[in-house]
Amino acid sequence: MGRQARAAAYKLAQLSSDEKNTILRAMAAAIRQRVPELLEANAQDLEAGRGKGLSNAMLDRLMLDEKRIVAMAAGIDQVATLPDPVGQIIDSWERPNGISIEQVRVPIGTIGIIYESRPNVTADAAVLCFKTGNATILRGGSEALHSNIAIADALAQAGAPEHAIQLIPFTDRESVAVLAGMDKWLDLIIPRGGKGLIETVVSLARMPVIKHYDGICHLFADKAADQEMAVDLTVNSKTHKCGVCNALETLLVHREIADSFLPKVAAALRTKNVELRGCDETRKHLTDILPATEEDWSTEYLDLILSIKIVGSLEEAVAHINQYGSHHTDVIVTTDHLAAERFLREVDSACVFHNVSTRFADGGEFGFGAEIGISTDKLHARGPMGLRELTSYQYRVRGNGQVKG
Amino acid sequence: MGRQARAAAYKLAQLSSDEKNTILRAMAAAIRQRVPELLEANAQDLEAGRGKGLSNAMLDRLMLDEKRIVAMAAGIDQVATLPDPVGQIIDSWERPNGISIEQVRVPIGTIGIIYESRPNVTADAAVLCFKTGNATILRGGSEALHSNIAIADALAQAGAPEHAIQLIPFTDRESVAVLAGMDKWLDLIIPRGGKGLIETVVSLARMPVIKHYDGICHLFADKAADQEMAVDLTVNSKTHKCGVCNALETLLVHREIADSFLPKVAAALRTKNVELRGCDETRKHLTDILPATEEDWSTEYLDLILSIKIVGSLEEAVAHINQYGSHHTDVIVTTDHLAAERFLREVDSACVFHNVSTRFADGGEFGFGAEIGISTDKLHARGPMGLRELTSYQYRVRGNGQVKG
Repeated sequence: MGRQARAAAYKLAQLSSDEKNTILRAMAAAIRQRVPELLEANAQDLEAGRGKGLSNAMLDRLMLDEKRIVAMAAGIDQVATLPDPVGQIIDSWERPNGISIEQVRVPIGTIGIIYESRPNVTADAAVLCFKTGNATILRGGSEALHSNIAIADALAQAGAPEHAIQLIPFTDRESVAVLAGMDKWLDLIIPRGGKGLIETVVSLARMPVIKHYDGICHLFADKAADQEMAVDLTVNSKTHKCGVCNALETLLVHREIADSFLPKVAAALRTKNVELRGCDETRKHLTDILPATEEDWSTEYLDLILSIKIVGSLEEAVAHINQYGSHHTDVIVTTDHLAAERFLREVDSACVFHNVSTRFADGGEFGFGAEIGISTDKLHARGPMGLRELTSYQYRVRGNGQVKG
Repeated sequence: MGRQARAAAYKLAQLSSDEKNTILRAMAAAIRQRVPELLEANAQDLEAGRGKGLSNAMLDRLMLDEKRIVAMAAGIDQVATLPDPVGQIIDSWERPNGISIEQVRVPIGTIGIIYESRPNVTADAAVLCFKTGNATILRGGSEALHSNIAIADALAQAGAPEHAIQLIPFTDRESVAVLAGMDKWLDLIIPRGGKGLIETVVSLARMPVIKHYDGICHLFADKAADQEMAVDLTVNSKTHKCGVCNALETLLVHREIADSFLPKVAAALRTKNVELRGCDETRKHLTDILPATEEDWSTEYLDLILSIKIVGSLEEAVAHINQYGSHHTDVIVTTDHLAAERFLREVDSACVFHNVSTRFADGGEFGFGAEIGISTDKLHARGPMGLRELTSYQYRVRGNGQVKG
């Protein structure tokens, strides 16, 4: 499969944007045409899942109905409308000796995607890689195997070069190890799933891995914060959707406003059923909340729980975030422009926000049109990853016989 | 050391370009002031090296004299004059909801450099990382240990934040394994050395590795080649410096010009004492040369040896390069503009050249001012790596209270 993916990648790299978009629309059509087959495959997965005693939440993530399948196809059509980064000239210049140098975006080549449960990741990942001229080898979770095979088959049969999209029909751990050792055939592996899966891939992989670890996001209510705005942003960041990586986990409050701000923010959070845990000083203001332990500061709750800490200064807030955070997304709320700029400069996170909800750390909200994930790495791609981050580049150099002398 | 490097990295990230350049000039001055200490440390290494029976070539690589030390200092002064990529705004845009997004270059953070013998790598690597605001942990080879300690000490004492430049005073294999497992403290490892060293680091490392593997570079003399130019470029690419990764290893010749071109290029190469090895068809034209085996096509000779193959078409040349090459640097020589553009587009290498010697695949020749190496990876950095490739980025987002609804 690796050898086949590499051969397909050379063909994919030569397709024009129009050719790729035509195939993408054919993929969307194929998904729509195959609704009965997809539902049947999915029914097998659901039945097996019920037999294995999967929770209702897990079964819901696994479930496809006509509405979800149509949405999947619409998502593919939408990717066809996005600009193609391949072929873009990133930079170009001429040297004194007359050679001209062009840095041009090209596909990465071959990408392995290892993911869990939700079958729509099969379409999402394969389609974004295809749009950027990359061949993919997909390895999904066991729960969704029949659905994944049916989706990958529909996509692969829609006119793409042979082997441009391949799915491994095994879901054992061994298949992850084999994939991770194929550095001759795979240029990149992207694991999409829980921390355990990512850790496994990182420890086995010989090729680059782009990791999407957790988001321990902070909001710092500065002494010069507009307190009403700070309440709104805290509530939105924490409760708009609490099970995702860009949800708020820790609120830092400047000591000078703790007296007035904490009761207001606590009241607002309680109307949304958020459990609060505080440092000792916070608990003097909010006497009925549980204490936050050392462990809380580095916990991604993914739940309606918020830890709160009072800090004496901007520096203390920055130091706490850099030490305990996951370098994903952190916010300052303040009317003090200098404090804001200092926070943005000193916090070592992929996304640093001034007066904006953490929930905007997202490829869609950034205007990327599509998102393969939010990278917590610092190399190649950091933060929301769009199509551009699925490309590499090459240097094309033109001369007239220059030799080095 | 990892923890200390991380702390230093936060301080480094906040230094202005002027502050960093002042410290760089102090580092250069410190190297010049410590010539006697450096010579003494180097004498210990040389003595030990002679005791271990190192070859004269190895001893020469290890040797420092006043001229080399002064050149090392001059190199540091030169890095001080280069533009600082940190703080550059890569991209910026505004979203319909009024939030403004800025993608800004920032340091990567902490970088481990694992390298062999030559002590000047200590200065080169540490200084380029410092210029870009990164903290480094250096782990050099055993032969140069005393020299490396003396150089790193001179650099670290010149006004940089504490622990910005650290050198591991061990050279055993265990120290590589420990470094490679420190993914909490190191954002990147760059191995500089032979294939064995890189392989070891790749198999152990949990963090990203930027690899500088071998260069199996090709020159394709197309049927429409200016034959005189093709001879000059072949000779220059092969013989200007044959022990480096951007030297030519395989010459591909279009069948239609083999008759006239092969005798000319063979004669020119023989005046430079190049041993030729050819495919069966080549040996009909050059009857006295050795056959090239299957292994030759994927061998980086790093020596005055050249393999030659006759191909029937541009496609065959491209296919050979993509299959046997190392995706480093490949050249077409032709007067046919369309053939050239097709070659540049279809060859999957970091550097693809038209009518230029392979020897120009180099950060200095590209105008980067300094080079940390030539990456054979496709992620983050591909081809010659300058200061820009030692940076990451972050998204700085400014709003006025936007919540997701």
